[in-house]
Amino acid sequence: MKQSIKVAVDAVVFGYDPEKGISILLIRRKYEPFQKVWALPGGLVANGESLEDAVRRELREESGVDVNYLEQLYSFGKPDRDPRNRVVTVAYFGLVRPSDYQLSAQTDAEDVAWHSIDQIPKLAFDHKAIIDLAITRLRGKIAYEPVGFELLDKKFPFSDLENLYQTLLGREIDRRNFKKKIIGYGFLEELDETIQRKAGRPAHLYRFNKKKYDELKTKGYNFDLFL
Amino acid sequence: MKQSIKVAVDAVVFGYDPEKGISILLIRRKYEPFQKVWALPGGLVANGESLEDAVRRELREESGVDVNYLEQLYSFGKPDRDPRNRVVTVAYFGLVRPSDYQLSAQTDAEDVAWHSIDQIPKLAFDHKAIIDLAITRLRGKIAYEPVGFELLDKKFPFSDLENLYQTLLGREIDRRNFKKKIIGYGFLEELDETIQRKAGRPAHLYRFNKKKYDELKTKGYNFDLFL
Repeated sequence: MKQSIKVAVDAVVFGYDPEKGISILLIRRKYEPFQKVWALPGGLVANGESLEDAVRRELREESGVDVNYLEQLYSFGKPDRDPRNRVVTVAYFGLVRPSDYQLSAQTDAEDVAWHSIDQIPKLAFDHKAIIDLAITRLRGKIAYEPVGFELLDKKFPFSDLENLYQTLLGREIDRRNFKKKIIGYGFLEELDETIQRKAGRPAHLYRFNKKKYDELKTKGYNFDLFL
Repeated sequence: MKQSIKVAVDAVVFGYDPEKGISILLIRRKYEPFQKVWALPGGLVANGESLEDAVRRELREESGVDVNYLEQLYSFGKPDRDPRNRVVTVAYFGLVRPSDYQLSAQTDAEDVAWHSIDQIPKLAFDHKAIIDLAITRLRGKIAYEPVGFELLDKKFPFSDLENLYQTLLGREIDRRNFKKKIIGYGFLEELDETIQRKAGRPAHLYRFNKKKYDELKTKGYNFDLFL
């Protein structure tokens, strides 16, 4: 019997803004099925194209976003997940700073926007389940890898990192121990510059030292950022 | 342009035997391409079948093995990974006790056997890369989830668990601290029974309390089994 299954890719791109919290990049579908319904950027893989090239292309086409950090999340293949054909989708997730991008909807998208993870609209297909898994993965991941730095400015006050972790985890963290632990790892540089954010004393700026981090990782260092 | 990509599944099934260490279930291919070459059990997904049903079916057909614990690993989709067509494969990994099974090669397999992870033969397709990723994932996973228990007898002396972890990690562990930590979590029951394994004192038997473990997990407990 001839197999009639198609292969697609979808992208869950997280953005973080210190003021607005965590959001996800969604497009509004131009065509049926689920016309005008919000969905993850994505689409069918071209015959000669790798999965990762496909997801980057779809993201560029539908949203104008080029993602730096992109990681395969999971493949979703329930036989009835698409009303047209059987489609297996390989989902990816990425992290960006929304302020770095000018959004632009094209091809299959009639609109594109960041949506707060607390206010995700009704979504096409099984995209809600894909997003739920991506959030779970992201929360698990930040516990043992400092991926959060992708979401911050290059130089940031320590409070931005604390707030990011609190937002991602959805709970308070022990700020004092968190700082002690992170600084102890040595992959964060304290700079001579300061920033004045609201009232109060100016705060020192920090920078993520990826080289130092990679060195530690190569040595088999196990990060445990939780307390 | 019409998409001509096929979807397959492959299974990396790990087995653990206290005497022989860790092995992987491989089949010898009956047909071209890679005729008579060892490969992972797997094959094309049927149109109406879920990915997980497909991998369980292929495992049963090609090796006679029914896997209890099965988890999606990663999807491999390089355009040239199969010399016939473009095939995207969704790889799964599982853990079993080899002594629980009678192997039986059928359909596309002309032989099936356990191969020590230290002596993996030349493999078909990109199956070596799939196995490498599965080993990395398994090593990472045992650090924060007690999945290793699937590989032990229902009742086991503590030294079996220590040896399993040492084998999986490929290094010595601090036995004293490891035991203290594991016992501290409370998901391991010490039984009144003992076992006499070689010379020396009889050793107490332990049993994994999955209910207790699930309770801790639901509470959001973070396991960290490493030292």
